[in-house]
Amino acid sequence: MTGATPREADVVVVGAGLSGLIAARTVLAAGLRPLVLEADDRVGGRILTEEALPGVSVEIGAQWIGDTHHRMFALADELGVPTFPQYDEGETSYELVGSGVLRERDFHARFGAELAELERVLRLLDELAAEVPPEAPWLAPRAAQWDAITAGAWYDGQGLSPVARTLLEICTVGILSVPTVEVSFLHLLFTIQTCGVGAELFAESEGGAQTTRFVGGTGEIPRRLAALIGEHIVLGAPVQLIEHGPDGVTVHCRGGLVARARRVIVAISPALAGRIMYDPPLPGRRDQLTQRLPNGAAMKAFFVYDEPFWRAEGLNGQVISDLGPARMSNDSCLPGADHGVILLFLEGAQARRYGSWPEAERRAALTAELVRHFGPRAADPQCYVDGEWSERQWTRGCYNANFGPLGWTGYGPALAEPIGVIHWASTDTATQWSAYLEGAVEAGERAARAVVAELS
Amino acid sequence: MTGATPREADVVVVGAGLSGLIAARTVLAAGLRPLVLEADDRVGGRILTEEALPGVSVEIGAQWIGDTHHRMFALADELGVPTFPQYDEGETSYELVGSGVLRERDFHARFGAELAELERVLRLLDELAAEVPPEAPWLAPRAAQWDAITAGAWYDGQGLSPVARTLLEICTVGILSVPTVEVSFLHLLFTIQTCGVGAELFAESEGGAQTTRFVGGTGEIPRRLAALIGEHIVLGAPVQLIEHGPDGVTVHCRGGLVARARRVIVAISPALAGRIMYDPPLPGRRDQLTQRLPNGAAMKAFFVYDEPFWRAEGLNGQVISDLGPARMSNDSCLPGADHGVILLFLEGAQARRYGSWPEAERRAALTAELVRHFGPRAADPQCYVDGEWSERQWTRGCYNANFGPLGWTGYGPALAEPIGVIHWASTDTATQWSAYLEGAVEAGERAARAVVAELS
Repeated sequence: MTGATPREADVVVVGAGLSGLIAARTVLAAGLRPLVLEADDRVGGRILTEEALPGVSVEIGAQWIGDTHHRMFALADELGVPTFPQYDEGETSYELVGSGVLRERDFHARFGAELAELERVLRLLDELAAEVPPEAPWLAPRAAQWDAITAGAWYDGQGLSPVARTLLEICTVGILSVPTVEVSFLHLLFTIQTCGVGAELFAESEGGAQTTRFVGGTGEIPRRLAALIGEHIVLGAPVQLIEHGPDGVTVHCRGGLVARARRVIVAISPALAGRIMYDPPLPGRRDQLTQRLPNGAAMKAFFVYDEPFWRAEGLNGQVISDLGPARMSNDSCLPGADHGVILLFLEGAQARRYGSWPEAERRAALTAELVRHFGPRAADPQCYVDGEWSERQWTRGCYNANFGPLGWTGYGPALAEPIGVIHWASTDTATQWSAYLEGAVEAGERAARAVVAELS
Repeated sequence: MTGATPREADVVVVGAGLSGLIAARTVLAAGLRPLVLEADDRVGGRILTEEALPGVSVEIGAQWIGDTHHRMFALADELGVPTFPQYDEGETSYELVGSGVLRERDFHARFGAELAELERVLRLLDELAAEVPPEAPWLAPRAAQWDAITAGAWYDGQGLSPVARTLLEICTVGILSVPTVEVSFLHLLFTIQTCGVGAELFAESEGGAQTTRFVGGTGEIPRRLAALIGEHIVLGAPVQLIEHGPDGVTVHCRGGLVARARRVIVAISPALAGRIMYDPPLPGRRDQLTQRLPNGAAMKAFFVYDEPFWRAEGLNGQVISDLGPARMSNDSCLPGADHGVILLFLEGAQARRYGSWPEAERRAALTAELVRHFGPRAADPQCYVDGEWSERQWTRGCYNANFGPLGWTGYGPALAEPIGVIHWASTDTATQWSAYLEGAVEAGERAARAVVAELS
């Protein structure tokens, strides 16, 4: 555009989130030249480790892996990033449907029947999800029926008591990051099935997706990957235009950088991928897909104390509350550090509401919640940090993208299918653990392998 | 970017659809300099008149106005574009729920009870819609409840017979351009209320929105408006980046054109507005709104015959069918021309399905439908023309944008509210006849008047 000399590569990768970095590393390992163009001034995408206090890091973004995240365990091992288990001793603190604050034991004693209802629905969800092929949810025998209703409407139809329905909502929103009435029931079943652990997915910190953390922070993963990819990464290069044809692509960034390559892997969420200009324009089906996969609304808030005082009280740091502002919390302490860290989740409607409040007011409302559950010491943290993702220009929402009704059956095949020399990555396109770190690795590897095969 | 001299204006208008042209004309009338930047190589946006045969024009896009479209009648009058009434004599032809083809009289005789059911639901919709303020649907007393379910789920809950439910779906999809299960029930009520004619909106060609057409084609309206605005319009200038601050905007287009102005009016659909890069970035709420207002899926198909042979049979050219491929049709003949023109609508699931077929196969399937209803002469048109809107790079879907569940209550205030020096137009932001030509005029005038007031 400015007559600057284009940078040449074999494969341009758009986005230096985990999926893009994995794609670039795979391309590099095959003896080809990648060029990663990242809009932001850092790598990591939805991974963001920040120092709350010296030596006390918090995860504004992705924090955990689970026992079946084999790709991530292998990656951490290869990169030399040790892991440690999520703290999970003691009782959860509940307050649901006007129950007041109840310890887990008391909650279970009082709401045994409601918990049995919940178990029944989770088992039913497992049975239904087993019919959904995660690589092609639109081919499920009952796809048309399940895609025509929302997950919330299906939940409402199960005849649940208020406590069971509320608990189910909280657990599900913790995964989807939007209220269940915004999401297709088929998408919910896909989400369960893509993770391969059934509705155990909804269990906080046990079995499912949140058992293990990274020493030094999740940010160590992209940092070390980026070091391996080195000069093949350009930061501060927002892609505006991808010209493409059988011979390759010319990629134009804001600021004038131009790159030429034989293939491009677009490794950002579908909604953001739809904001790039493509020449020639993409098929209507792909374009309308990108209009129908909104990113969720989520923020995380951290309170750092001098010690994890709740542990001595026999509490595990987890809150489940419908009074809020946060619906859930957990213990986010670091191994070998004295500090106590509580993480509060604001997801869906909570993120929308409290995310627009001034920080001091949000913090005050969250403090009141912590005091209800953990006592007066919770009112006096050393430090407070939070992070909201829809404000971040190059992410625009977390944790992931969800289809509303008729999304999968109307547009699903356009999610990951390459278009000419354009390939798609990002965890949202994965078939195993879509929306998780594990899915980001799968998607990046899948796209890179396809490109490498075409170029070999 | 290339050091080219920026074009200077008082107000940049992004998009030369009806809303943008009206905004530019209003700015010009106030003695200020507009500059309209249009990505496409033509003006008109979702208005597109094409010649099917010499002297026989068809409307690929917006075609009608209705009796209460006062702004549009005044505009047509001012621009010297005469109007003519939609042909509406004779009977509609039905086939619903295995009924076979039935003329209106026979359909009414056989399904009187079902039509009474439909009437009851339409009256109820009118009552509920009256509670929705069209300038702020999220303030409706029952907004939270209505925004948490889909229109389709509400319909399903009305205990309707298959014929009444099917008819209701067809009429509604004819307005929304997506299946009712994709749309919030609050959005449906807003749609009814914004039009101010109640559920009569669903009536094809009588009373509602489709009574009147333009001599020479709807395209005469933007063509004549553009002539008045003259050299203040630049075609082929896709806006990529809007830098904005208290002092004004610098707007960057693909190809290097740069424009500076004191204000910008973005007069394109919200989904497309979200694809522009803004510096500084827009608030998260506005950004997430643009991820949650997908454009509909719609295409129109025209068969041109030597004469409107169905009229002699006492038929009005309208089909209502659940067998399809088209769910509805009408008589689109021109005054003073001998030719007969039938227009078939493919909306929502039909547009997605048949829009991806090769034209010859789509035409054959539509021909079979016309033959069922109008006899063998329908098999022999002089000409066939169709147009699908999701394939058009600078529109990406028609007729309009619809919120899914929790869209209005989660993000509604961000739809039309200016952000600093950035104002929003397009019919999707209107409070009267949103999604219609009439709404485009309202929105363009509203945005331009706000800008003029600020600059005066």
